[in-house]
Amino acid sequence: MYKLTVLYGHPTDPAAFDSYYWEKHLPIARTMAGLTGWTIGTCEPDPSGALPPYYMVVGLYAPSRAALEAILASPEGMATVADVPNFATGGSTFLWDEERVVVPVELPVTE
Amino acid sequence: MYKLTVLYGHPTDPAAFDSYYWEKHLPIARTMAGLTGWTIGTCEPDPSGALPPYYMVVGLYAPSRAALEAILASPEGMATVADVPNFATGGSTFLWDEERVVVPVELPVTE
Repeated sequence: MYKLTVLYGHPTDPAAFDSYYWEKHLPIARTMAGLTGWTIGTCEPDPSGALPPYYMVVGLYAPSRAALEAILASPEGMATVADVPNFATGGSTFLWDEERVVVPVELPVTE
Repeated sequence: MYKLTVLYGHPTDPAAFDSYYWEKHLPIARTMAGLTGWTIGTCEPDPSGALPPYYMVVGLYAPSRAALEAILASPEGMATVADVPNFATGGSTFLWDEERVVVPVELPVTE
């Protein structure tokens, strides 16, 4: 499986980020067809209490890199990517990788 | 599900990193019991050809943060964490988050 990880830096206004992300961005992103996995997590302090360098980490999965790029190149994908600057005041970093799996992952829908 | 993401920065010697990671570190890390998911990916250039700021992204899953911390606090977990400086010449960044799942993820073992 291929994965795109999106790392969001700490926003200038976390409450505004959260509100926009869940109420505005997510409905736009949900219009993308073909994803075979999608996870969202807000980063928490590490065991020492230190804040990590990112605010949120998102995982988008597809069967291949070509499939993932095609999803992002669709009108719905382009609208989703174009919306990111509207809320990502702390910037965003994209990591592309083919997932190698040592212990199987099964994550049922929570949202 | 709870996830610990480990981001490895670009090592000074990628070939040495790969050799150590897969041949030395992985066997040590495999001794950890209780993980409910474990993925490893080497980052690839983005669609524009630009290299991402990290070399490798690893996901470790457990049913809860407490369970994940307990795994890392076990003798096997401590040995695994203690081994990281032996190869992570580009540094490592740890992100802790509770995973919210929009599209379910199923990743069978590949390694």
